[in-house]
Amino acid sequence: MSAEPGLTIDDPAVRAEVEAAFARYEAALVANDVATLDDLFWRDPRTIRYGGGENLYGYAAIAAFRAARAPAGLARRLERTVITTYGRDFATASTLFHRDGAPGKVGRQMQTWMRTPQGWRVVAAHVSIIDAPAEPG
Amino acid sequence: MSAEPGLTIDDPAVRAEVEAAFARYEAALVANDVATLDDLFWRDPRTIRYGGGENLYGYAAIAAFRAARAPAGLARRLERTVITTYGRDFATASTLFHRDGAPGKVGRQMQTWMRTPQGWRVVAAHVSIIDAPAEPG
Repeated sequence: MSAEPGLTIDDPAVRAEVEAAFARYEAALVANDVATLDDLFWRDPRTIRYGGGENLYGYAAIAAFRAARAPAGLARRLERTVITTYGRDFATASTLFHRDGAPGKVGRQMQTWMRTPQGWRVVAAHVSIIDAPAEPG
Repeated sequence: MSAEPGLTIDDPAVRAEVEAAFARYEAALVANDVATLDDLFWRDPRTIRYGGGENLYGYAAIAAFRAARAPAGLARRLERTVITTYGRDFATASTLFHRDGAPGKVGRQMQTWMRTPQGWRVVAAHVSIIDAPAEPG
């Protein structure tokens, strides 16, 4: 059912780069490694992060949130993670997650990544928690 | 504070295209114009939409959800809409929204758009509703 895309989708070499960046982000998140989390977001006023309970516009607001965040209870299990790359410079990463402290809930994290001269960076991210749907996922 | 990007950010002609696509999507959403909403999503199994209460993987699942959706109560007001384009083929669109039927709540909609031979299409989207933060936004 795919339409023919204008960009090469899921080039293996590009995917491997983004998978490595995503894994680095995840490891930093559960360890509350703020320096790495900050480093992986695009250092630009246009970067946006909608979090579980806050709407952050611009790199500075995101970094301020990270610096103030309580470091406890960040461990989580990922489920149905999908990374897709579009051409050489763009990717999306979507995943569900579960935390032991929130039974019956499912988290959703969606990120848009861009290749920059400094490496792959998140330009937009959205995290939310909902009641786990009756359907799988 | 911007790092020098590898791609041209917010080229005016590209931005105008994405703004038009975004406006078309918004008009279709509040009118529950399912055909247009379907048309504006990438027709691919890799398209993902995390909705207010559901996690939809693949174009077919998204279209099935649209077809079954109750058409009432979709009117909304947008706030703090930011569209950013990266090079010629990629964009993100982030917006908050408010509905009269949900006072004290704020919706967040984030979309990643890609240029395809058929036009601009949403490749990933995430919608969530939270209690309005005490801070603006």
